[in-house]
This record gives sequence, C-alpha cells and structure tokens, in this order.
Amino acid sequence: MENILLKNIVIEGIESDILIEGNIIAGIVPSSASDLSCDGEVVDCKGKTAVPGFVNMHTHAGMSMMRGIGEDIAFHEWLDRIWKVESAIDEDYVYHATKVACLEMIKTGTTTFNDHYWHMPMAHKAAIELGLRPVLAYVICDRNDPAESERQKDQCVGMYEEAMKWKDQSLFAIAVHAIYSVSEEMILWAVRFAREHGLRIHIHLSETKKEVEDCMAQHEGMSPVEYLDSLGVLGPDVIAAHTLWLSDNDIRILGERGVNCVHNVNSNLKLASGYRFLYNELRDAGANICLGTDGCASSNNLDMLETMKTSAMIQKAWRGDPSVMPLDEIMDMVTVNAGKALGLPIGKIEAGALADILIVDTENYNFLSPGSFEANLVYSAHSDCIDSVICNGRFIMRNRVVPGEKKILAEARGVLSKLS
Amino acid sequence: MENILLKNIVIEGIESDILIEGNIIAGIVPSSASDLSCDGEVVDCKGKTAVPGFVNMHTHAGMSMMRGIGEDIAFHEWLDRIWKVESAIDEDYVYHATKVACLEMIKTGTTTFNDHYWHMPMAHKAAIELGLRPVLAYVICDRNDPAESERQKDQCVGMYEEAMKWKDQSLFAIAVHAIYSVSEEMILWAVRFAREHGLRIHIHLSETKKEVEDCMAQHEGMSPVEYLDSLGVLGPDVIAAHTLWLSDNDIRILGERGVNCVHNVNSNLKLASGYRFLYNELRDAGANICLGTDGCASSNNLDMLETMKTSAMIQKAWRGDPSVMPLDEIMDMVTVNAGKALGLPIGKIEAGALADILIVDTENYNFLSPGSFEANLVYSAHSDCIDSVICNGRFIMRNRVVPGEKKILAEARGVLSKLS
Repeated sequence: MENILLKNIVIEGIESDILIEGNIIAGIVPSSASDLSCDGEVVDCKGKTAVPGFVNMHTHAGMSMMRGIGEDIAFHEWLDRIWKVESAIDEDYVYHATKVACLEMIKTGTTTFNDHYWHMPMAHKAAIELGLRPVLAYVICDRNDPAESERQKDQCVGMYEEAMKWKDQSLFAIAVHAIYSVSEEMILWAVRFAREHGLRIHIHLSETKKEVEDCMAQHEGMSPVEYLDSLGVLGPDVIAAHTLWLSDNDIRILGERGVNCVHNVNSNLKLASGYRFLYNELRDAGANICLGTDGCASSNNLDMLETMKTSAMIQKAWRGDPSVMPLDEIMDMVTVNAGKALGLPIGKIEAGALADILIVDTENYNFLSPGSFEANLVYSAHSDCIDSVICNGRFIMRNRVVPGEKKILAEARGVLSKLS
Repeated sequence: MENILLKNIVIEGIESDILIEGNIIAGIVPSSASDLSCDGEVVDCKGKTAVPGFVNMHTHAGMSMMRGIGEDIAFHEWLDRIWKVESAIDEDYVYHATKVACLEMIKTGTTTFNDHYWHMPMAHKAAIELGLRPVLAYVICDRNDPAESERQKDQCVGMYEEAMKWKDQSLFAIAVHAIYSVSEEMILWAVRFAREHGLRIHIHLSETKKEVEDCMAQHEGMSPVEYLDSLGVLGPDVIAAHTLWLSDNDIRILGERGVNCVHNVNSNLKLASGYRFLYNELRDAGANICLGTDGCASSNNLDMLETMKTSAMIQKAWRGDPSVMPLDEIMDMVTVNAGKALGLPIGKIEAGALADILIVDTENYNFLSPGSFEANLVYSAHSDCIDSVICNGRFIMRNRVVPGEKKILAEARGVLSKLS
C-alpha cells in the first residue's frame, strides 16, 4: 500500500499536511511549518477541507434497489411489499445491490457502515471490492421456529469462522433482528456467542409504538428495553437501532448500560413511526448516540449529510428550541461516537487514527458565507461537495469519480431486470 | 431567440419530442411518431426525463451569503445578528448575493422565484442576467413611522413605473412585510395600489405563535388572518408565507378567499417556529398550497427538492400517517399550484406553456429501482441529478455548467470580504 501525503488541507481552520502511512494517519503538521515528506503519492489539497469519514451506524445496504417501491402507503402494506420483493432475491442480487449501496455511500462521504442484511458474505465481497470499511453482521431472525434456530446457530458459527479468515478492514458482528422476531432462547444464545468472541451486537429496538405495546402485553408489563435488560443483553457492546419509544426508565437503563443508540430520522419520519427521538435525555443519561439512514426501502437514500441536517431540524422543532442538537454534537454523532460504539480508532483526524478522510471542496455557493465550515457543511451543502474520499489509507473516490461506477450500475440493472 | 427541439426525452413515462419556439412550448409528440423539426438547436435527450422547472414561492434571495451566521441560538438572538448584517449591506451586496442565489437556484432546478428583499432593482438585474424568471416585490415595511410610510409610497410608485418598462420575463409584485411591521394605513394603501395595477401581494402571515398572540392582544382578539380579512386584504392575489399558526376559523377564511399559502418547512423547523403545518386542512378548505425555502439565513439553502422531501416527511410523521402528502401533491405544489398563484402558464410541460423545463439525468444509483420517477426524484435523489435547465425558452444550465459561475463566486467573495 502506497503512502499518501495530503498537502495544504484545512483541518479545524488550519492549513495542514497529513501523512498517511499504510492505513494509519502517521502525522499532521501545520503546512507553514511542515517538513513531512512521503515516498508515495503527494496530493495538493489547497482550498479544500478535511473531515473524518462519516459512519452510518444502521443500514441494510442490500435494499439499495428497493427505493420508492412502497410510497404513501400504510406501514403494514409497505412491509408486505418489501417481503414480497425480498422473497425473490438471492446472493447475486445482494452482491450487486450492496455494490450500488457502497457506490452511493462513497459519493455521500460514508467510509464505515454498520450493515444488517441477508447473504452477508456477498455484502462483504461488495464492500471490500469498493474499499469501504464494513461492519457485517450475521442476522439472527428465527421467528420462534426451533428448527430455524438450530440452522441459524450452525450458520452463525460457520460465518464467524469464515470471518476470522478475513484479512481486511471488515468487522464481524452479530445482529439480533428484534425482540418480536427472535425467540428468547435464541437471543440469549446470540448474545452469549457475541460476548465469548468479542463481537458487537446489533438490534432493532423500540422502533414503533406497537413493538412496545406488544412487548408489554407479552412480558408482564416490561418494555422492550426492560425485557432485554432483564435478560442481561444491554451493555456498551450493543448497538440499538431506533430507540424511539422510550419511558423514563428505559432511558435510565440505556444510559446506565452505556448502550449505543442509533437515531434513523428519515426512516422514522417517512414511515410515520414517530418523530420525538429523546436525544437530550439519552445523552444526559449516558447513552452513546449515533446516526443511521436505515435501508433505502424506508429512508430512500444513504446520505448521512441529509440525515444529520434532518435530525437536528426535527429535534429543534419538536422541542421548540433552536439551540438543541448543536453542530459539534451532530458532527460527533457521525464520527467519534460511532468510533466509540464500534471500538475502532475512526472518526478523528489525528495521528494514530485509521485513515478515513473526506476531502471537501468549499469553492462553491454553499460555503460562501461568514458561517462556520460545519454550519455550511451540515445545513447548506449536499454530498456533492465531497470531492474525494480516503478509506483505510486508500483513495476510493477522486474528484467525484469512483472507479467502475458505470459497470456497477449496468450490472445491477441487469440483476434488477431479471426480477421484474 | 433560437428555437429548440428536445428529442427522445421522457415525459410522464413516454419518450417524446418537445419543440420550443421562442419562450413557449409549441408542441409535444411521442418520439416514435414525431415529425417535429426545428430551424434552431436540436438536442438529443435520450435516457433523460423532463419535469417542469420548480417554483420557489417564498424566498429572500439577497440573503444567500448569510447562511450559517446564526446557528444553534434562540430566535431573537438570531434576528439581532441578521439585522446587524443587514444594516451593513448595500445595492452592490444585494446584486452579488442575488447572483449567488440565482446560481444556486439554477443548479437545484428552480426556474421561478418569488422574492422579497431590499434593493429590488439589483435583484432584477441579477436574475435577468442569469436568465431566471423572478417575481420581484417592492417591500413595504414602515414600522409605524408615518414619514417612512410616505417615503415608501413614493418609492413604490416609482418602482412600479420602472417595472412597467421591463421588457423581460420578470413579474412585479407588492410585498407587505407583515402585520407587525407595517401600519394599518400602509397595508390598506399597498393592497389598494396592488389591486389597481393587478399585482400580486406577498406577505409573511402567522409565522410564529408570538405573532398570533400579539395580534390578538392588539386587535380585539382577532388572529392575523382574521385581522387581514377584516381589512379586506385576503384574496386569490395574496401569497401568504408560512401560515403556520392557524385556528379553524383562519383555515376557513384562507380557503374561502382562495389565498395562496406557502409552506417553508426548513425555516420553520430550524428556527423552531413550529412543525404542524395544517396541509390537509388548508387544502380541503380551498387554499392553494405552494412551497418555499425562505432565505438562506434561516433554511440555509434554496434547494426545492430538499424542501419537497422534508415537507412530506414531517407531514407524515406528525400526523402518524405515511399516506399523507402523496407524491403527486408534492409535485403539484412546486409546479402547477405555483403557476396558479402567480397567474402564469408555468409548472406544466404542455403546448402553450412557458418553456421552463428541467432535464433530469436518471442514469445513477438514485433512480436504479422499480420505484416511480417521482419517488426517486423527491425521496432519493439530490439536485445534482438535474443535468440541464431551460427557462423562458433558453438554456441557463447545460450539463451542470452555468456560464460565468466562477466569476459570480469570485465577485461575491470580494463583496463579502469588504463587510467583515
């Protein structure tokens, strides 16, 4: 792997040189005093600004070709349509759909994504081919069928053994679909397996009001959070997607256990799941809060900048207070908080961190104001301001060109046309 | 003006040829049966889709360089900052800031904008230079100062006389800033003047809870809508921005009078003005509903696609019903409804309409799904899918290039640096 020296790039207001050795940021020095040199590629980034690659902490990449298939209809009708499409897909579909998702993520500045989908080895192949940093879960979803449980246990162990042979930047995780789709026995097995092997646990939690009501009816008045806590599931290795319908006690538990809560604002709004994500309360209780897009079937794209803007705007609006979820916290949720959740040195541009860097072009109308870089990035700009992307020490987009883009789209179109 | 023939462009699912003669759409024929010819430019649009140019029904273009200057602070602190900046600006600033706004509008698919700002002749110059279709108001805002009233009356008459000499696609209108910033005598004068001359009346109305409460305290319990109605102001020639805090009686009045109500979702969310825009109720009562971005100081950009997506998502979320504000209504609000509000044959691609057309590139991941074109345009894509823009029968952007873009930004940067 060739070393890279980025020259004259603005970091937190200071023009700096960044030396990348292998997949690590080796050094950062103000350009005016820099003596950094490099035996690899030297790139002049004059006029551009560096930010850490964004982390999408909850998505289903394989759903990238399902956008728009269920618009303006009620949740259960929507779910029926998704399931009908999903019944027809195979490994080949997931491989190509994940490549499309990766292409979109690169173009919108995501370098790490926490994925939750079927045919995971295909998602792994796709993500590595495109150079992203994927977190890939084996998805457990037995629907209370003991035979299915046994099959999934075997498959999960097999996938773990395969994953241990990976020699790349991928992280293997365990996904427990949700409390309503996985048996208690299987939840306990999955969590034990994950903890024995030091794996993150990725779960949908308290996404809809119905999930909470059904849980309380089934589990002696316990909410989904209380129920999982009673099983010993919750801890700082748990990444809980949605956490939208929470009681005060739920918030206290999520905070005390240091759970990573992932807000997926666009999905929640569009499916009308709810809009009052309890950001302030969860943060103050001690939970670690990150952001995600959910899959394209619900949120319709994988754009983290859009997610950041909408998250903050809704939070300000429903609380009636424009000062909540300020810019530094929005930036933290898609960078350092995500690094903490995954236990990876990502989300910071500093010596020793993994080299996941966005090179942002500010020579356009979105940045032409006395406002701060972060204000213009989050509230004014779109992802097309992201000129180039480095992930794990390698350029995966340069000047908005991702190698092989046309071929990825053409092949995916071929797979899609076979389905319809 | 050279005629244009667009060949093989998809309109509502059918590959068609569009002939533009002067500034008018002269004919549309399915490409398979087309014998349209043209003595001007012939453009092959194979693989692309046509949509009507978007209409931004409420903005302050001259604020384009104020994005991000007041983030995460309370409304009145924000307003103080805006006023401080505004006290320092002049004609030259507004000219260059409006050019930047026009550049952004073109790149994001807006062809007509309903503007409300100071130094209007400079906005006129800027918009015409860039080829947009502006609606330009003389802004009345006397703050109950009789001397200022007289000065503004004279200036308004003078501007009207100037505007009558315009030989371009601009429309002149009268803006009444708001009920709290314009004296009753001046409101009546402005509305009478507008109606004598067949001009649209553009007003901020019921934007904040405080505006409503203050009005009720001052005007014997009447809401801003009731107060204006008691003065005979409300009618189908009124374009009312925001209309966010409404009683049942307000909705009835706005509907019966056929008022054009402009929802500015991003501004309302970000300033925490409110989020429960009463879309269904206003539509059912008979009001004509359009969308706007407001100025860049509050919403931070002028992107109508973003406005469309956020409007629909918030509406679905707060009502708890994913079927509300369906796609066809979102499209109507930024096209035909706006044409109706302005009394212009815009917002439709049909013979006889003004030739304001967006040419959308669908050869990318945002459109790679079995979802409808509209679903992918509104919920998945960003404005960078807009390849080319025709306004008033002229290309004002081709392949994402707006002539003179770099110069516009450089000159605006020069003006901005003099201020700080």
